[in-house]
Amino acid sequence: MKSFLDGLNGFGANPLTGGFDRPGYSDADMAARAWFEARLKEAGLTVWRDGVANIFGRHGPADGPAILVGSHIDTVPDGGAYDGALGVAIAFECVLAMKEAGITPATAIEIVATAEEEGRFGGMLGSQAIAGRIDRDWFNAASDPEGTTLREALRAQGLDPEEAFTCARAPEDVKAFLELHIEQGPILESKGIPIGIAQAISGVSNISVVLFGKANHSGTTPMDMRADAFAGLAHFATRIPDIIERHGTDQSRITIGQVELEPNFAHTIPGKAVFSVITRDTDETVQSHLLSVVKREIKEAAKAHDLAWDIEEKSWLSPVSLDGGLATILAEHAETLGLPYLRMPSGAGHDAQTMQALCPSALVFIPSRAGISHAPEEFSKWSDIVAGARLMLSTLTDLSSKS
Amino acid sequence: MKSFLDGLNGFGANPLTGGFDRPGYSDADMAARAWFEARLKEAGLTVWRDGVANIFGRHGPADGPAILVGSHIDTVPDGGAYDGALGVAIAFECVLAMKEAGITPATAIEIVATAEEEGRFGGMLGSQAIAGRIDRDWFNAASDPEGTTLREALRAQGLDPEEAFTCARAPEDVKAFLELHIEQGPILESKGIPIGIAQAISGVSNISVVLFGKANHSGTTPMDMRADAFAGLAHFATRIPDIIERHGTDQSRITIGQVELEPNFAHTIPGKAVFSVITRDTDETVQSHLLSVVKREIKEAAKAHDLAWDIEEKSWLSPVSLDGGLATILAEHAETLGLPYLRMPSGAGHDAQTMQALCPSALVFIPSRAGISHAPEEFSKWSDIVAGARLMLSTLTDLSSKS
Repeated sequence: MKSFLDGLNGFGANPLTGGFDRPGYSDADMAARAWFEARLKEAGLTVWRDGVANIFGRHGPADGPAILVGSHIDTVPDGGAYDGALGVAIAFECVLAMKEAGITPATAIEIVATAEEEGRFGGMLGSQAIAGRIDRDWFNAASDPEGTTLREALRAQGLDPEEAFTCARAPEDVKAFLELHIEQGPILESKGIPIGIAQAISGVSNISVVLFGKANHSGTTPMDMRADAFAGLAHFATRIPDIIERHGTDQSRITIGQVELEPNFAHTIPGKAVFSVITRDTDETVQSHLLSVVKREIKEAAKAHDLAWDIEEKSWLSPVSLDGGLATILAEHAETLGLPYLRMPSGAGHDAQTMQALCPSALVFIPSRAGISHAPEEFSKWSDIVAGARLMLSTLTDLSSKS
Repeated sequence: MKSFLDGLNGFGANPLTGGFDRPGYSDADMAARAWFEARLKEAGLTVWRDGVANIFGRHGPADGPAILVGSHIDTVPDGGAYDGALGVAIAFECVLAMKEAGITPATAIEIVATAEEEGRFGGMLGSQAIAGRIDRDWFNAASDPEGTTLREALRAQGLDPEEAFTCARAPEDVKAFLELHIEQGPILESKGIPIGIAQAISGVSNISVVLFGKANHSGTTPMDMRADAFAGLAHFATRIPDIIERHGTDQSRITIGQVELEPNFAHTIPGKAVFSVITRDTDETVQSHLLSVVKREIKEAAKAHDLAWDIEEKSWLSPVSLDGGLATILAEHAETLGLPYLRMPSGAGHDAQTMQALCPSALVFIPSRAGISHAPEEFSKWSDIVAGARLMLSTLTDLSSKS
């Protein structure tokens, strides 16, 4: 498996940073897909790619439904070696191990390497295409931060954009989707537990806020005559712990990640503050209530500092509950294997949440060192990787043994 | 005077914004100086420029000491019509009025239009040159935000940089310096008082702070496992009112004007926050104590949010007390003229603070609409301008009548 990961990560490797650049539909991403197809063929699987370049390798009966297992192989710019790629590597390794052990599945297993999971174009196009959940308005308007449209990026790789709407699998053809992924958070490592079994994926709301004050001279304007946009932002920011304490759960997350001031000059009181607020929870009612409290608190901070405000809702994703039956089966296999595990929600989005709309889906985590992800420093211990692979092999062998 | 101001502001006018671009030693600034020299000559004054392009126009005895009166004619980029230019216009108008009235001063009056007051190169070169207070290390290293050095800018306008060190006036040759300037703050307007007489100019300390946290995923990282650099900054920012309440005066100002986050991405907890803190007071002991409290509070905020910190002292300017005798004379003339006035400190820096090192200096304010300055919206009412001109004429006539 190490050599498979190394092979895959030969595409888009940046020797200067130690990171990997395989954004969806980049040349490096497409080259990695072609390389992966060749590996699947070498292994004797039935291989094809669909209209958005999801790669499939099928083992077992040629006809009938399949259990899908895998993850994505695209990365964020300068991302890590494990995010996505590890789940595909482990899926491949499981099938190789079953073949080597002479296990013939009663239900086919399809390894899948999904396309464009990291949201270069703001969605999860690969799994959305499989699940038949592409919003056409989004699809037609989507572009990356450089302004390249999704349609242009697909055509540049020889793909017909309209084919994206022909990739949906029929629910009766897909019995389940299993995904292993690195946690991308600090919980498993901090608890010393090698396996996480996700029961839900947090919803995400993204608002963009502007506070408008007056950009006056920092020396001539007395403190009590200011309309300081940054002071208003800071006021709201320090309210976040109390908002969660009073209205949230231990799964609530409120984050101010992006801030731009104007004129952003040391000697001038900030006249304008533009910032993002991301609100997450695993419970839709809580998430919705938190968002309304966040908006109310922003307005109160603005009033307290003599500021005008504008709040724009950029996006809303509801929380997703994954399949409880699959999670229980995974937990039973972990117990049988003697692997400590934690039932936990996922704070990050994954293909499994999209696939859940098509079929019962499950998401398994292994620890991420220091919770770091989307960076060259991303790392997972080999012993944890082996634990995750054992759990996936055991569960996959079990599930595929029934027709 | 209106036509004089209009003439001066013909240089560097930006019709798109309504603002004025005459940064020190720009072509527009130098053209305005040449135009001003021509006006002084037309008025029959003895005119010269020194080695840094300060312009002088002398009225009265050719020999003996002089009373200097004026301000600067450079502007910040896209600045207003009054900042600096009004003080020069009023000085010129006073001398014209004295000539017209047949008043021959016993002590010469020199109108001065100083150079590079707005700090394109980080100082107040014109008045520093007159006062003999140029720091050679600063002078040799100074550059503008685009990287043009002060020496290059001087040479580009045909000036020999070394001549800057030959401009100092002897203390015995300068009896006083009077400057009228717009307040650039909201106090006079809010109180409905047309005249401010500054007794002191605030000191300014500028520190640059970096808080170092961990740039983790906003969804997967629980609130209590974060090292959020922006949360630390917000924590400190909301402490400012209490810091001033407990350790400052009504002249204290603490401002966070510039903030840069990294990676500054909505979905990522800020791993780094870089920000400026400007601390001002008119009392050096208070200013020094406030700065030490600011540093202590930054460290406490950093510790509370599990952050490392770095604090760099970028600059320190001590408060300056202006000449008490001159301020009293101005106050007496205001009373005689029936002009309401306010003794007040100046929160902004001005040539008068530099000149005070050479000679007794005084600074007169007139109201700025909404306290706005350094912007095209800068505006002062004509009636306030007239009040300021009357006070300057009366005081100047009085002071120059004695030899």
